[in-house]
Amino acid sequence: MSDHNKTYDDFIGFMKENTCISRSIALLDWDQQTYMPPNGIEARAASQAVLQGILHERVVSERMGGYLRELSRSEVYESLDEFQKTNVREMKRLYEREVKLPSELVKELASLQSLSQNAWVKARQDSDFKAFQPYLEKMIELKKQVAEHIGYEDTPYDPLLDEYEPYTLTRDIKSIFSRFRDKLVPVVRRIIDEGENMDEERLKGDYPLDKQEAFSRFIAAEMGYDFNSGRLDKAAHPFTTTIGGGDVRITTRYDERDPRPALFATIHEAGHALYEQGFLPEHYGTLMAESISLGYHESQSRMWENMVGRSLGFWKHYYPSLQEYFPGPLSGVDVETFHRWVNIVKPSFIRVEADEVTYNLHILLRFEMETGLIEGDIDPGEAPEAWNEKMEKYLGITPEKDSDGVLQDVHWSLGLFGYFPTYTLGNLYAAQLFNQARKDIPSLDEDISSGRLLPLREWLRENVHKHGMRYTAKELTEMVTGEGLNEDHFIRYLKSKYGEIYGLSL
Amino acid sequence: MSDHNKTYDDFIGFMKENTCISRSIALLDWDQQTYMPPNGIEARAASQAVLQGILHERVVSERMGGYLRELSRSEVYESLDEFQKTNVREMKRLYEREVKLPSELVKELASLQSLSQNAWVKARQDSDFKAFQPYLEKMIELKKQVAEHIGYEDTPYDPLLDEYEPYTLTRDIKSIFSRFRDKLVPVVRRIIDEGENMDEERLKGDYPLDKQEAFSRFIAAEMGYDFNSGRLDKAAHPFTTTIGGGDVRITTRYDERDPRPALFATIHEAGHALYEQGFLPEHYGTLMAESISLGYHESQSRMWENMVGRSLGFWKHYYPSLQEYFPGPLSGVDVETFHRWVNIVKPSFIRVEADEVTYNLHILLRFEMETGLIEGDIDPGEAPEAWNEKMEKYLGITPEKDSDGVLQDVHWSLGLFGYFPTYTLGNLYAAQLFNQARKDIPSLDEDISSGRLLPLREWLRENVHKHGMRYTAKELTEMVTGEGLNEDHFIRYLKSKYGEIYGLSL
Repeated sequence: MSDHNKTYDDFIGFMKENTCISRSIALLDWDQQTYMPPNGIEARAASQAVLQGILHERVVSERMGGYLRELSRSEVYESLDEFQKTNVREMKRLYEREVKLPSELVKELASLQSLSQNAWVKARQDSDFKAFQPYLEKMIELKKQVAEHIGYEDTPYDPLLDEYEPYTLTRDIKSIFSRFRDKLVPVVRRIIDEGENMDEERLKGDYPLDKQEAFSRFIAAEMGYDFNSGRLDKAAHPFTTTIGGGDVRITTRYDERDPRPALFATIHEAGHALYEQGFLPEHYGTLMAESISLGYHESQSRMWENMVGRSLGFWKHYYPSLQEYFPGPLSGVDVETFHRWVNIVKPSFIRVEADEVTYNLHILLRFEMETGLIEGDIDPGEAPEAWNEKMEKYLGITPEKDSDGVLQDVHWSLGLFGYFPTYTLGNLYAAQLFNQARKDIPSLDEDISSGRLLPLREWLRENVHKHGMRYTAKELTEMVTGEGLNEDHFIRYLKSKYGEIYGLSL
Repeated sequence: MSDHNKTYDDFIGFMKENTCISRSIALLDWDQQTYMPPNGIEARAASQAVLQGILHERVVSERMGGYLRELSRSEVYESLDEFQKTNVREMKRLYEREVKLPSELVKELASLQSLSQNAWVKARQDSDFKAFQPYLEKMIELKKQVAEHIGYEDTPYDPLLDEYEPYTLTRDIKSIFSRFRDKLVPVVRRIIDEGENMDEERLKGDYPLDKQEAFSRFIAAEMGYDFNSGRLDKAAHPFTTTIGGGDVRITTRYDERDPRPALFATIHEAGHALYEQGFLPEHYGTLMAESISLGYHESQSRMWENMVGRSLGFWKHYYPSLQEYFPGPLSGVDVETFHRWVNIVKPSFIRVEADEVTYNLHILLRFEMETGLIEGDIDPGEAPEAWNEKMEKYLGITPEKDSDGVLQDVHWSLGLFGYFPTYTLGNLYAAQLFNQARKDIPSLDEDISSGRLLPLREWLRENVHKHGMRYTAKELTEMVTGEGLNEDHFIRYLKSKYGEIYGLSL
């Protein structure tokens, strides 16, 4: 026992050191996206590469392998408590992924990523898919090699998906996404065909940046985001990052004429941050203080952004404050009008500008595209046509140029196959969890419309955050909601909310 | 040849990776002093320790030793160019220092530093030297052990000094400081006894912080500080740090009632930063892009802060702008009055608040104290008395409590013996270099009083910055000024400037 304890302690000490390195990498990245001067980029890229290299070497080291072999021996593993088991099991999963990849392939991928991203930036500018195609082909080839090295039963997409959404199989996503699509498309179609939209421009006006920043801070604090353990800064592409157990930072972006980008980016990122601030301090630096999956992480941000932050109840409480911050454009505008303004549904080409209803069709399309590309059913050369056909089929619109279509996202240029579906999984998990929270907290709707946001945060901490990686997404979902992932919660949420907004019986 | 080239290239590649780690450590530190939220401190300390440990292991590694042994073989070394020789020679010096220290001693020191600094903070608060004394004694003991391990000919203070001021011997500093003291004390005495000071409070008033920040940026840019390769932020204790070849950051501090702290901290730090921004890009990441010594670094900051930034010529050009920024307190105040206000000489207890004339007496006192403590001539228990006697002797004042005396500085609690003399060396080098710059640029005074600051920056780049560590401080001083370090330049500068300000024939 004592020897095992010693091994476990050494293992955790080593893991915590590695976490320190990855947190330092996170700070290099945060700084690059917030405050780094333009000429800092060359040294920054070099520092990133060096720390990444050191971290990778340590993760796949003989030392790590030795700890894991010893701690995985069944009589040792069974003597561990649940938290210890989680750390061993999850580190083993990460170790086994990484150690299977030949270092030549890792280097080739890193080098291709940077070339390919450059090529994508230019190709998107010129809307020239052919210029990007060779990089996409090469990237698909390398990612297939990754999949082969890691191994899989069903499809090479499985091990790629597993990087972002562990323990979730492609076939399960295919099946739920296909049901979801069949239910979602008619809802979207009816809103688009029959719903009447207000004029987007109507509430635009003068929203001073300092006021927007102050309101962003106010709302994040209302949600229970702890500014003593974090900060809010500006970034072109808002993100959340954890620099340490007591240092979880969020970023947002501002538009002087429109408060919506800042408002909803802030609420979204604060939702992510509450997850990271909700881990238990005794687990800091270990995998018990990491999220289950990107899908689950996204469920936290989407729940706060959409189910709370775009609800009429939320604004019934917070809209008077918002009007005080921005009397110019908002005085005399009623809360129902403002609520409609933050919930306009319309088909659009660009994913990151899409509303919460059509957004998922953008994701379903990408999931179908990338499984097709990885499984060989779609030829990279035919990607633009395949993309455009799906856009027409799901959203009824066809982009005129590939920069508004297949070239719009950075993900594939970086090899992030398997990442997109986590966005829609996030929405589905969010609706199912929120439905359960409403059952468990009967006063939840009233709480929100009275500006009491902490009960929801506490419920999430207790049911999701504090567990870290202890359960898989599937296990936790069943444990908390009593059933597996079920798209009907999200469909019901959409029908109810948008039926009311658009006066339609959906 | 080809094999040596390969070894040299591998060596430089390894050195550049190590630089990436030390730059990452610098970013962790910059962030800690500027933007880190309060609860980030625990994880930050851990990340610092992990990266420091990794860096130390690499510096003293067998790999580094192997490169250095091979590249130091005389037929190899002689085949290198001057830049290559510099990198080998200086890395060897650092390696040999570090490798001689038993890792137990390194750890004991690190652990004592943190305990001792905590004890110092409390002891200073309570003005209770006895509470700090055991830590001081232990620190002196450990630093003596460091000195014994590294080795020395004359005095154990030599290897400690060498960490900050390489290739400079204690006996040389003793001799120049003793001559300097004998010439400085009478000057200070006459100014204090016969000079008439204006009222400190007279120009205090309303100096809005945003205006102070804008003026700080303006002045730094005027000096040629490149904001595309740096930033200006706020910090309690202003500092300059290099995060990468194109990323040299400065910080300053603000007082709403007094523009002087921000003005001169900004100019001081920008002076440091010009040194770091003046290295040649082809040397970035190597020791050819590092400064000679702390004394030389300080010469750059002090020259800009005092010889340029507190000169009447400088303000003849910039004072009208300053008045425009702060019309309230400064309109109707003439430039001569303002110039006197930024050059008030008076004895004071606290080093960091001292003027440029009395400042050096604070340093001479500390140098005498710390050589005495390390060489055994002063017993740590008698440090307060020894301190107070010297204060009385040099400045004619005696602190009433040790928090205003021997307990005021953090340095000894951290074991930074050998650091203090570099401040005065900086002043002496600054005066000697500035004297030479005036000879080499006949229009220099006129340039400065016309707001043309770039000729001085270019002269410093050409004569100092671009050489990195190629020459020792002694060699460079002789090369640029034609003589060794000579305190008369600084004495002459003081007599001339303050004779005029105080209407005394000094």
